[in-house]
Amino acid sequence: MPQLRLALNQIDSCVGDLAGNAETILRWTRHSAEQGAHLVAFPEMALTGYPVEDLALRPSFVEASRAALETLAGRLAAEGFGELPVIVGYLDRDESEQPRYGRPAGAPKNAAAVLHGGRVALRFAKHHLPNYGVFDEFRYFVPGQTLPMVRVRGVDVALAICEDLWQDGGRVPAARSAGAGLLVSVNASPYEREKDDTRLDLVRKRAQEAGCTTAYLAMTGGQDELVFDGDSIVVDRDGEVIARAPQFDEGCVLVDLDLPAAAAEPPAGTIDDGLRVEHVTLSADPLPAYEPETPGGEADRLDDDAEVYTALVVGLRAYAAKNGFRSVLIGLSGGIDSALVAAIACDAVGAENVYGVAMPSRYSSEHSVGDAAELARRTGLNFRTVPIGPMFDAYMGSLGLTGLAEENLQSRLRGTMLMALSNQEGHIVLAPGNKSELACGYSTLYGDSVGAYGPIKDVYKTSVFRLAKWRNRSAAERGETPPIPENSISKPPSAELRPGQVDTDSLPDYDVLDRILELYVDRDQGRSEIIAAGFEAELVTRVLRMVDTAEYKRRQYPPGTKISAKGFGKDRRLPITNRWRETA
Amino acid sequence: MPQLRLALNQIDSCVGDLAGNAETILRWTRHSAEQGAHLVAFPEMALTGYPVEDLALRPSFVEASRAALETLAGRLAAEGFGELPVIVGYLDRDESEQPRYGRPAGAPKNAAAVLHGGRVALRFAKHHLPNYGVFDEFRYFVPGQTLPMVRVRGVDVALAICEDLWQDGGRVPAARSAGAGLLVSVNASPYEREKDDTRLDLVRKRAQEAGCTTAYLAMTGGQDELVFDGDSIVVDRDGEVIARAPQFDEGCVLVDLDLPAAAAEPPAGTIDDGLRVEHVTLSADPLPAYEPETPGGEADRLDDDAEVYTALVVGLRAYAAKNGFRSVLIGLSGGIDSALVAAIACDAVGAENVYGVAMPSRYSSEHSVGDAAELARRTGLNFRTVPIGPMFDAYMGSLGLTGLAEENLQSRLRGTMLMALSNQEGHIVLAPGNKSELACGYSTLYGDSVGAYGPIKDVYKTSVFRLAKWRNRSAAERGETPPIPENSISKPPSAELRPGQVDTDSLPDYDVLDRILELYVDRDQGRSEIIAAGFEAELVTRVLRMVDTAEYKRRQYPPGTKISAKGFGKDRRLPITNRWRETA
Repeated sequence: MPQLRLALNQIDSCVGDLAGNAETILRWTRHSAEQGAHLVAFPEMALTGYPVEDLALRPSFVEASRAALETLAGRLAAEGFGELPVIVGYLDRDESEQPRYGRPAGAPKNAAAVLHGGRVALRFAKHHLPNYGVFDEFRYFVPGQTLPMVRVRGVDVALAICEDLWQDGGRVPAARSAGAGLLVSVNASPYEREKDDTRLDLVRKRAQEAGCTTAYLAMTGGQDELVFDGDSIVVDRDGEVIARAPQFDEGCVLVDLDLPAAAAEPPAGTIDDGLRVEHVTLSADPLPAYEPETPGGEADRLDDDAEVYTALVVGLRAYAAKNGFRSVLIGLSGGIDSALVAAIACDAVGAENVYGVAMPSRYSSEHSVGDAAELARRTGLNFRTVPIGPMFDAYMGSLGLTGLAEENLQSRLRGTMLMALSNQEGHIVLAPGNKSELACGYSTLYGDSVGAYGPIKDVYKTSVFRLAKWRNRSAAERGETPPIPENSISKPPSAELRPGQVDTDSLPDYDVLDRILELYVDRDQGRSEIIAAGFEAELVTRVLRMVDTAEYKRRQYPPGTKISAKGFGKDRRLPITNRWRETA
Repeated sequence: MPQLRLALNQIDSCVGDLAGNAETILRWTRHSAEQGAHLVAFPEMALTGYPVEDLALRPSFVEASRAALETLAGRLAAEGFGELPVIVGYLDRDESEQPRYGRPAGAPKNAAAVLHGGRVALRFAKHHLPNYGVFDEFRYFVPGQTLPMVRVRGVDVALAICEDLWQDGGRVPAARSAGAGLLVSVNASPYEREKDDTRLDLVRKRAQEAGCTTAYLAMTGGQDELVFDGDSIVVDRDGEVIARAPQFDEGCVLVDLDLPAAAAEPPAGTIDDGLRVEHVTLSADPLPAYEPETPGGEADRLDDDAEVYTALVVGLRAYAAKNGFRSVLIGLSGGIDSALVAAIACDAVGAENVYGVAMPSRYSSEHSVGDAAELARRTGLNFRTVPIGPMFDAYMGSLGLTGLAEENLQSRLRGTMLMALSNQEGHIVLAPGNKSELACGYSTLYGDSVGAYGPIKDVYKTSVFRLAKWRNRSAAERGETPPIPENSISKPPSAELRPGQVDTDSLPDYDVLDRILELYVDRDQGRSEIIAAGFEAELVTRVLRMVDTAEYKRRQYPPGTKISAKGFGKDRRLPITNRWRETA
C-alpha cells in the first residue's frame, strides 16, 4: 500500500496581508519539508486571509492575490521545495464567466491551488458556498464545478474547501465515484461554542461517504469578530480518528498514512452533481516503503469553560496584533466585567502590556477602587487612578444635568478619559460590556461602550461569573494567584452612577434574564414560545421590549469575539428603526 | 377596448410597523376608491416595510406579517372595498419547501398578494432576487416560480416585483407569452444619484418586451440609510410615457388606461424560464365605457442638485420620525458642513425643532461663533453657546495631554456635550461629517463622529459646497433669506483644534481629492488606473493610504443618507483589520 506523510498547517492568516501570509506559508512549508512531509496543506484562503468580504469585489485585490500565488509557487521552488506539492487557499476569479444574474461582478472565486514544480499545477474553487449566519458567499463568489484531484506518489488525492463537506452531495460522493485514496478539505470554519463535536461527527460521516481517509484542515487565530479554533482532524475511511490537532494553537499536524494505490487509468469525465473531474498527475510512483514516524494521536481537549475562555483570549490577541497594537487600556470599576476583561487581556498580551485606570466619581463605593487595585496587584497590570470629579463639575456647572443625562455624563467622561490616554500613550481601548447588558441596552453610548474591541460582548453575564470563577480555579490548580478578586465576584453588580444603584433596579436577576435572552436572541424564539417554556408572561414582555428597543446601541458597539452561533455580531442584522415588537 | 383606472400609491412604510403600515394602506385605498380606481397597488413589502434584513429569519415576524395580511383583507372588505382588487407587498414563507442547500431557513418570501372580496385572492413571490450592493436577498428569501395574473374587469394583469424587471428573462417575457394586457411591478428600489434616467429607460424597454402597458410603482421616503424617491412610471406598449409621478412625494398616481381585452380562455401551463402561470379571474367583464378623467402626464423633474438635496432632507426626516424624535441637535462650528446639515435639518423637521450649539475653545477663531449665530439668525433655529474651556482645563489638569490627544480631546468634549443635551432635552444628535473626511479618516472617533445620523456622510466636500450654494440660490429665487452665511462658504475649511489649523495642512485640495476618492471608493479602481487617469502618483499613493487605514473610524460612524451606488454605507463591507494596501 502506498504511503504518504501529510502535513496539515493550521495557521493564522491576516486578511489582506498577502506578503505576510506568503511568508507564513513559506516558513511552515520549510518546517513541513524538514519533517519529511510528502504533501503539505494550508487553510482556506490562507494567502489572502479569511473572510475578505467586499475586498473580493475589488479587481486590484483579486489580481494581487493571483500574482502572489504565482510568486509563491516560484519562491517555493527556488527554496528547493519544487517537488513537494503544497495546497494553498487564495482568491481567484473565473476568467470565462460572463456577467449574469445572481453572480458577483468580476466572478471572484474562493479558490485553492496545488503548487508544484515552481508553478500552479491545479486550481479549483469552492463548490458549495455558505450564505447564512456570518457567511455571505453568494455575494462574493462564483462556485467551482470540478472535482479536483492530484496524483501524489501514486495516491489519488481529491480536494475540497470547507462548505463542500458541510453540505450533502457534491465533492464528497464524487470523491468516492472517482476512486480517491485520500480526501483533503481546507477550511476556515469559525469557532462556535460546542461546535467541535459537530465538526468531528461531520468529518467521520463524510469519510465514510467518500470511502477514503479524510483530512480536515482548519484555520486558527482570529479575524475581527471571528475566532478560528484549529482542531484539524484526520479520520480513516471507517470514520475512526487517526489524528486530531490542538485547539486554537498554530502548528503543523504530521501524519503518516497508508493509502490505496491509484488506478492505472486516471479518473475523468463528469460525475456526481455534474462535477467534472480535473485530474493532474504530479508523481505517479509510490514512495519506497518507510517506517511511519508520526502515528497520529489526539491532542487533549479543552473543557467547555476553558474552550470559551481561550477563544476570548485568542480573539483579543489577534485583533490587537492585526491592528498593530502592543498594549491595551481598560477602565477598571472594580466590578466583574472589567475584571474578567483584564484577566483575558493579561493572558492575551501579557500583564506588562495591560493598562488599567480607575476613574472614581462621587457615587463610586469605597470598594470599587480597592477591588480594582487588588486586581492590579494580583495580575501585575499597570494601574493608575484618575478621579472624574473636576470634569464632572465643569459640565454640571455649564449644563445643570439631571437624571439619566447626569448618569450617562459620568460614563462618557470616562470614555473620553480612556480615549485621551489611548491617543497619548498608544494603547487600544477595550470595552467591558457583556451580552446581557448589550441585549437590554443597559449601557451608555460613547461611555462604557467606548473601545476598539469588546472581548466579552458575546458572553452573557452568568457566563461572565462562570468564566471568572473558572479562571481563578485554574490558576489555583497551577499554584498561581487567582487574578480576579473574590469581592469583584461576590458583590452585587452595579453601574455606580447614582447613590446605592444596583443592576437589579433595572434588570431582572441575571440567571432568569440570560435564559430568556438566549431563547429570544440566539434561538429566534417568539414571545409565546418563551412563555410556553415556563417563564412568567409579564417578565418575558419586559425583557423582549428592552431587547427590541436597544438595537441602535448595539449597532454602535465595537466588534468583539464571537463565540455563539447567533448573537450581537456580524450575523445579526436588524433594521435600526425597526418597529417590530414581539410584545406589541 | 376595456378600460381601467389604475391607482399607484407611492407610500413610505416603516420596517416592522405592521399596524401602522396597514393603516396607511387602508387610508390610501380609501382615497383611491374615492377617486374611482378599479385596481389599486402598493409598493414592495409595503405591509412590513423594506428592507426587513434579518427580521425575515424570525419566524414570529413572518407569521405576524401573514396574519396582518389576512386582517387587512378583512378590513378592506368591511370598509366596503371588497370588490376593489388591492395589490400589497408583504413577507411570506414557502409552506412546502424543505430545508436545502443555499436556501434560508424557514423559506421566507419577498411576496405580494392581491386582496379581493375580503380574502387573499392570489399570492406570489419575487422571482429575481438581487444580491449585490445594498441587497442580500439570497440570504433572506426563496424565489417565486410563477407568473401571477389576475383578470380585472376583463383585462389580464400580470404582476412582478422590482428585480423581476431589472434582470433579463423571467416575468417580463412571460407576461408577453401569457398575453397580458397590463404589467404591474411593485418596487422598493432605493434612490441613487442619476438613477432616475436609468429607471425610465428600463421601464420603457421592459414594456416593449412585455408587449403591454407597464406600470412601475415605487416606494418613497426613507429607511435607515436608504432613501426611496418615488418617481412611479406608467408607459404604453411602445414605451411612451403615459404618467410619471413626482419624485420623493407620498401620493397616489391615478391613470385611466385603455387595455386589450383578455382572451376567452385564461392562460395556463408553464411558460418562459419554467414559470407556471397562476391566473385568477376577479371580474371577467369589462367596465361600461367611461370618460377618462386622469389622462396621466408627467410631474416636473428636479435638477441634479435639487434631487440630491431633497434626498438628504427626506432621509433625515424619515430617520428622525421613525426613531420617534421630533427635534434635532447640531454642534455649529461656523463651518460649511454643520451649516449645510443645519439647513437640511430645518427643511426636514422645521427650524423650530432644530437646536444648534456653538462650543468654542481657545483655538476657535472669532468668526466661528459669529458665523454660527448668523446661520441661526437666517434660519430661525434655536441657538446657544457653551464654551468648552472649563472641561478642557479639567482634563488637561489631570492628564497633561499633547498633540493629537489634545486636539481630539476638544472634539470629544463637544461630543459629550451634545449627548448630555440630547439626554437632557430629547433631541437626536446629527453628525456633520462629509464623505471626503470620512474617506480619509479626518475626524475624531467619539468626537465630531458623535450622533445618531450623519445626513451628509455620503456627500463629498466639493458637493457640500455645491449644495450649499444651490440651497442659497434657490432661496434667493423664491425671495427668501439664503440660510447659509456667505462667510461659511468662502472661508478656508478648518477643524480649529490648534492655532491656525486648516484642512489643507492634512489633506490635498478638495477638488483633486474628491476626484481621486470617487475613482477609488465609488468605482473600485486601483492605484495604477487612477494614475493613468491623470493624477500625480505620489498624491494618489498618499490619498489611497489614508483611505486604506481609515476603515475602523468609518465603521463607527453613524448611519446616514445614502445617495451613491457605492460609498460608506451598508454595501461597503471591508474587514476591519484588513492589511491590503493599494499602495504597498
